[in-house]
Amino acid sequence: MSKTVLFKNRPAGKPATSDFEIINEKIPGPGEGEVLLKAHYISVDPYLRGRMRDEESYIPPFKLDEPMESMVVAEVIASKNHNFEEGEFVSGMLKWKELQTSGGTGLNRVDAELAPPSAFLGVLGLTGLTAFLALDKIGKLRAGDTMVVSGAAGAVGSIVGQIGKIKGCMVVGIAGSDEKVRYLEEKLGFDKGINYNTTEDMETVLRQVCTDGVDVYFDNVGGEILDAVLQVINKDARIINCGAIAHYNETEIPTGPRPEGILIKKTALMQGFLVRDHVKDFGRALRQLSLWLEEGKLEYDETIVEGFDKLPEAFLGLFEGRNVGKMVVKV
Amino acid sequence: MSKTVLFKNRPAGKPATSDFEIINEKIPGPGEGEVLLKAHYISVDPYLRGRMRDEESYIPPFKLDEPMESMVVAEVIASKNHNFEEGEFVSGMLKWKELQTSGGTGLNRVDAELAPPSAFLGVLGLTGLTAFLALDKIGKLRAGDTMVVSGAAGAVGSIVGQIGKIKGCMVVGIAGSDEKVRYLEEKLGFDKGINYNTTEDMETVLRQVCTDGVDVYFDNVGGEILDAVLQVINKDARIINCGAIAHYNETEIPTGPRPEGILIKKTALMQGFLVRDHVKDFGRALRQLSLWLEEGKLEYDETIVEGFDKLPEAFLGLFEGRNVGKMVVKV
Repeated sequence: MSKTVLFKNRPAGKPATSDFEIINEKIPGPGEGEVLLKAHYISVDPYLRGRMRDEESYIPPFKLDEPMESMVVAEVIASKNHNFEEGEFVSGMLKWKELQTSGGTGLNRVDAELAPPSAFLGVLGLTGLTAFLALDKIGKLRAGDTMVVSGAAGAVGSIVGQIGKIKGCMVVGIAGSDEKVRYLEEKLGFDKGINYNTTEDMETVLRQVCTDGVDVYFDNVGGEILDAVLQVINKDARIINCGAIAHYNETEIPTGPRPEGILIKKTALMQGFLVRDHVKDFGRALRQLSLWLEEGKLEYDETIVEGFDKLPEAFLGLFEGRNVGKMVVKV
Repeated sequence: MSKTVLFKNRPAGKPATSDFEIINEKIPGPGEGEVLLKAHYISVDPYLRGRMRDEESYIPPFKLDEPMESMVVAEVIASKNHNFEEGEFVSGMLKWKELQTSGGTGLNRVDAELAPPSAFLGVLGLTGLTAFLALDKIGKLRAGDTMVVSGAAGAVGSIVGQIGKIKGCMVVGIAGSDEKVRYLEEKLGFDKGINYNTTEDMETVLRQVCTDGVDVYFDNVGGEILDAVLQVINKDARIINCGAIAHYNETEIPTGPRPEGILIKKTALMQGFLVRDHVKDFGRALRQLSLWLEEGKLEYDETIVEGFDKLPEAFLGLFEGRNVGKMVVKV
């Protein structure tokens, strides 16, 4: 018997625990060529909100009454697939189930010597890859650049800022509490953190902090913080649109100041980024991220929520900023 | 004696003829190393509106009580500079004066065999360069792409669309009258023209016309047309923010639907373009544009307003769409 989280209701606006249902079901043993997997860590990510909408996007929407899915680190507990042995750890896009079978496609072996298994959902998973490759493809950091990152204490943001420091940038992080600001400045080595919840005039504060203007803005939130940053960008600035968590629960496209005038004046660039488009660069990125980890240049934190049943709650917590670093559920 | 157009008043909102004054003044003969120039064609351009604001930008603002300036084609009528001979035609950033002296810096000789002098303010001037280089640097056209251009019957837009056809794209032009639409379709070879003044739902019309979606949008206007195009862009679309004439007379930053959500979903790019940043590519671009002209692949039209005194009126006419192709004043 295994628990499964089903998607039961498409939320309008903010999702609630009632949009999910946890059921018990019997899982068959692995068929020929299959493995039986036991989930150890399950990733919860803001982008999953998008899959709860019934609209065409870069990944298909979740189906009602079907299991949720995300990146999972799991243990092979039985194998009829010669590529995988019992006791091995793998990661992959899997269902929110305690136990499940898989044909093995899309599963990657997890190197337990490099980092604890949960790290393969974060710094060595899609979030680390997102941070690295978005900066590589769009940010094009140069030593001496000023980089601002929002959602700075989050999974992607915390890696982005540290890569900025490795590359010799002045790094400013925007986050939602004084505790997170201290974390950025004291633990991750950001030059400065800004608490958006206690900042009345973000543009003025950014102008004070970024005395040389802003060359790169790594945007995880969208909305008014983006508006403020646009007012202080330098010529040829690069804005990476990586997330817009401020809008994920909106039911209509929100309005704001139009950016085209500033983009022209500053010959600046805004570009959307999806890590899935860059699979061919994953190997190179993971080698660099692993190296920085081994060299002690990269810190990572996790917010680990214990218990399979807490999956819906942990996911909802992302929209209230309850995480520092990567949010994962330990089964 | 020579007439000069002075800038007399910084307009809030739409400029008026009363913001200018035409005076008579005595012009001295050329000093040592100087030439005396007689203006033949003076360019009026939407971007000049930006220089009428007292704010930092990519070129300094016009000063009150000083002459206006823009690109001018002039004849050397007296020369004490060994680089220029009497009777030669040159182009350069010059004052709005019938006669003026110049030290010669920034003046380029005009090749009368290639095209009539006024063309050096248009297809072989900054507008042709803008069209070519913005497509080259940001648009990255591929045969089979669908490209939409706004301000399509204007100076830049009319060249943009024709380059799109040369590159094998499906080209859709948006303009402000049925006459302009016919001009695009019948004279310039656009696949389709759309009259925004008689189109109620631009998004729906774009969806009907661009059955394969939009890969490149060359934006000369900003505002609601940009909003509509964003709704129909394809994955990895490129949006060139080249102009925002819809906003040039606005006193506050206009608001509209926020683009960041769409940019992420489509991994699309919006990038501002200023031709002045690409001076090192001017030679290559002019060689290609000249070649296309000679091969008969590029048509260009001009709206020629006769009379030096009409400079302010011709400039104001740009904001009412009074031009087809490049607007110039013949002195």
